Amino acid sequence: MDKSQIDAYLTENKKRFLDELIELLKIPSISADSKYKDDVKKAAEYVKQKLELAGIDKAELCETAGHPIVYGEKMVGDSAPTILVYGHYDVQPPDPLELWNSPPFEPVIKDEKIYARGACDDKGQMYMHIKAFETMVSTSNLPCNVKFMIEGEEEVGSDNLGIFVKQNKEKLAADVILISDTSIISNDQPSITIGLRGLSYLEVELTGPNRDLHSGVYGGAVANPINTLCGMIASLKDENNRITIPGFYDKVRNFTAEERNEINKAPFDLENYKRDLEIGNVDGETGYTTLERIGIRPTFDVNGIWGGYTGEGAKTVLPAKAFAKISMRLVPDQNSEEITELFIKHMESITPATMTIKIKKHHGGEPNITPTNSFAYESASKAFKEAWGKKPIPTLEGGSIPIVALFKEELGLDAILLGFGLNSDAIHSPNENYGLFNFYKGIETITLFHKHFAG
Amino acid sequence: MDKSQIDAYLTENKKRFLDELIELLKIPSISADSKYKDDVKKAAEYVKQKLELAGIDKAELCETAGHPIVYGEKMVGDSAPTILVYGHYDVQPPDPLELWNSPPFEPVIKDEKIYARGACDDKGQMYMHIKAFETMVSTSNLPCNVKFMIEGEEEVGSDNLGIFVKQNKEKLAADVILISDTSIISNDQPSITIGLRGLSYLEVELTGPNRDLHSGVYGGAVANPINTLCGMIASLKDENNRITIPGFYDKVRNFTAEERNEINKAPFDLENYKRDLEIGNVDGETGYTTLERIGIRPTFDVNGIWGGYTGEGAKTVLPAKAFAKISMRLVPDQNSEEITELFIKHMESITPATMTIKIKKHHGGEPNITPTNSFAYESASKAFKEAWGKKPIPTLEGGSIPIVALFKEELGLDAILLGFGLNSDAIHSPNENYGLFNFYKGIETITLFHKHFAG
Repeated sequence: MDKSQIDAYLTENKKRFLDELIELLKIPSISADSKYKDDVKKAAEYVKQKLELAGIDKAELCETAGHPIVYGEKMVGDSAPTILVYGHYDVQPPDPLELWNSPPFEPVIKDEKIYARGACDDKGQMYMHIKAFETMVSTSNLPCNVKFMIEGEEEVGSDNLGIFVKQNKEKLAADVILISDTSIISNDQPSITIGLRGLSYLEVELTGPNRDLHSGVYGGAVANPINTLCGMIASLKDENNRITIPGFYDKVRNFTAEERNEINKAPFDLENYKRDLEIGNVDGETGYTTLERIGIRPTFDVNGIWGGYTGEGAKTVLPAKAFAKISMRLVPDQNSEEITELFIKHMESITPATMTIKIKKHHGGEPNITPTNSFAYESASKAFKEAWGKKPIPTLEGGSIPIVALFKEELGLDAILLGFGLNSDAIHSPNENYGLFNFYKGIETITLFHKHFAG
Repeated sequence: MDKSQIDAYLTENKKRFLDELIELLKIPSISADSKYKDDVKKAAEYVKQKLELAGIDKAELCETAGHPIVYGEKMVGDSAPTILVYGHYDVQPPDPLELWNSPPFEPVIKDEKIYARGACDDKGQMYMHIKAFETMVSTSNLPCNVKFMIEGEEEVGSDNLGIFVKQNKEKLAADVILISDTSIISNDQPSITIGLRGLSYLEVELTGPNRDLHSGVYGGAVANPINTLCGMIASLKDENNRITIPGFYDKVRNFTAEERNEINKAPFDLENYKRDLEIGNVDGETGYTTLERIGIRPTFDVNGIWGGYTGEGAKTVLPAKAFAKISMRLVPDQNSEEITELFIKHMESITPATMTIKIKKHHGGEPNITPTNSFAYESASKAFKEAWGKKPIPTLEGGSIPIVALFKEELGLDAILLGFGLNSDAIHSPNENYGLFNFYKGIETITLFHKHFAG
C-alpha cells in the first residue's frame, strides 16, 4: 500500500466526502417510526449507490421482513484476508425536537463539527468505510477482500439482521468483522473497545388483591403490591451490592490481578466523574473500582417502576398491581438466557403467598470481550498508532452491542470495534454531532487497518 | 315524642321524600371540577330551600373561598340539648362513565335501591336528616335544638369548612355532632363506627445523577434512584411488619385485652374476606388480627410509585429520579404532624450520600375514637335497637374522616357516626346506590336518636 497515494487522494477529495455524508444525513431514516419507511429505503439505496460508485463489484439491497440490508463485496484474491464491514444507516428518532439548535435533518457545520441526527451514530462512522474503500480502490491500493453489510434496523434491535446472518453464513465468510460504532477516550488518547456487556431485560407484574382498594379500609391487613415489590427488589442486592440471585455469579469470569491492573490504567478521574453527574459519591460492588464495575462486573438495575396513583395530589389507594422493568448487564462468561431463567425462578420463589407474579422477557444479548493478542487487534492497534501517533488503550465499555456476540456465535468471528466517536457526540440525544477531524482521521485509520491486516 | 305520629307521617310522605331526593341527585354537584360550579351552587340552594320548607327558623348560604356551606338552625329551648348535624351535598366525579349501567345523574330505582352518584355518599344519607327534622317538626315532636351544617367540599378536602368552623365556634356550639356518612355491617346487624384512623400523606422525590443515564455506560458504578428508593421503602418495615421509623409507636395507644376482645367480636369471616379480594393470605403486623390491624394499628402504604421508563417495550435507562406517594394511617394517640416530621427526619437520615431527597407534605388528619360509654353513644345505640330490633355493634373503620378530629379539636365535640350505608353501595365507584330500606329506616332511627338524646 502506497501511503502517499492514499494521503493525496484523501486531501483531494476531502470536500466531496463531506458533501456526500451531508446528503446522507438529510434523509430521515428513522427505523422505529413506520412513517419514515420510504426514507429508510432511500437511505439504503443511497448507500448501495455510493458503494457501487466506490468500486464494489456487486452491491444489492437484501429485502427482509423489515428494512433492507445493503450488501456488497469486492474480492481481490483468494490469498488475501477478508474484512467484513458492518454498519447501519438507520438513526434514532430525534425527539425532543425543541432541544436541537438546528433541525436534526438539516446538517450544519459549526466549530469543526457536523451537527445532525446520525452524524456519528452511525452514518458518519459507517460512511468512513465506504470512503476508505473508494480511496484504496481508486489508488489501486486495496489489499484485502472486503464485504459490506450495512443494516437499517440497528436502532430497533437488529432482529432481521440475525436471520440474514444465519441464512448467509457462506456469503459472509470472513477473517474479521470491522465495526465503527463506538468511541475513543479523546482525540489525544485513542482507544479500542474490547469489552461489551450482555443484557437480560425483564418486566415484572406483581398482583395483590383483585382490584384497587381503599388504603384506609384495607390498609394494614392486605399486603400492598408496591411495598412488596420494593422489598423484593431491595432483597436482590446484599450490603456489598452483590446480586443475591442464586447462581448469578457462577459463570462470571474472574480476571487476574494483572488483567485488572491493565483495566485500571485507562485514564479516569473520579472527581470529574462525580462532578459531571453531580453525585455525592459513586456506588457499586464492594472491592471493585468504577472502571471494573462498568467493565467486568454484572449489574442489576431497575429501569422503570410504576403502580398505584401517580397523578397530582393525593389518592389513598392500595393498588392491585405494581410493575417494574428490570435489566441486568452481563459479563463473560454469563449467558443471557441462563440469567433470565435464574431471575425468573428466584423472583417466583420470593413472591409471598399474598401475591402472584408474571414476568415478561424483553430482549437479551451476550457479553463479549475481544482478545487483545489477536492479529486483528494488533492490526487495529498499529493503524491507530500510525495515524494518531499514539498507541490506543483497550477499553471495556459497559453497554451492549448484541450483534457482536451474534457474529461470534454464528460466523465464528471476533469483531474489531474501530470506533472514532467521542463521548461528547451526543448520540441518541439532541444536537448529535461528529468531529470533522475524527471523520477524516478515521478514514485514514481504516485504510491503515486494511494495510496491516493484509500482513 | 309520640312514635305513632312519627310513623304515620313517615308512611304518608314516603313517596314525596324519595322524589325530593331524586331531584337532588339529578344535580351534578361535582366539587372537584370547576365546570360544575353552578351545579354545586344549585345543590346548595336546593338544600337550603328544603331546610326552610322543613321548618328551619333561619337558613343561609355561607359563602367561602370555594363552595358555600348551608347553615340552618331551629331552637326549641335553652334547656333542650343541641344536635349539630353535619353532611355534604357535593359528590365524587362519576368516572369511569362507561362502567355505569345508567347515567350517574339520572337516578333510577331497581331492586329496591336507588342508583345515582351521591345516592349514599352523602346526598342520600344527609337528606334523611332533613326529612327526619321535617317529620319531627310537622308532628310537633322536635325534642332537641337542631343545627345543620351541610358543606360542598367534603370530596375535595373540606379546607374551607375548617376555616368556617374556627370562625363560628359560638354559632356552632352544640352537645353532639351527628354525621351519617358511614356504613353498617349489614341490614341484619346494625353497627356504629367509633374508630377512624388519622392520616399522614407525603410525596418523596429521590434524585441521583443530574440526568437520565445509559444503564450500560454507567450501570454498576452509579447508584440507581429506583433501586435506592425501593431499598429505603423496604427498610421502613421489619420482619414483623412493624414500622421502623424511630418514635413511630411512641404514642400508639395500647388497648387492653378486654378492649381487643370486644373489637374481635365484630362479625368477620376471614375466608370470605380472602375470597372476595382473591388473595392467598392476609398480611400485617404480627400479633394482631385483621380487625385489629384495620381498627387500632397504624399503617405504612405506598399509594403510588414511579420513575424511569414506563412505556411499551424496553429502554435501558438509569434514571435521574424516582418518586413515591406514601401514606401512613394513624391511630390514637398519634398526631399527624408529629408523624409527618418523624417520617421526614428518618427518610432524610437514611438517604445515602449518592442521593438527595425532597419530601412534600400532602394532607393529614387526626385519628379519633368515640367513647362508647357516652350519653350520645348510648342514645344512638338505643335508637338502633328500637328501629332495627338489634343492638348495634361498635366498629373500628380503617379510613379517615379528618373533620371528625377537627370538630373534636375546635368545638370540643364528639361525633356520633350514625351511618346507614352498606359496603355494597359502591360509593366513589360506578353504579353507586343506596337501599330504600336504609333510607327510610335511617330517617326513623334519626328521629329516635333525637328522642333518646333529649333524655
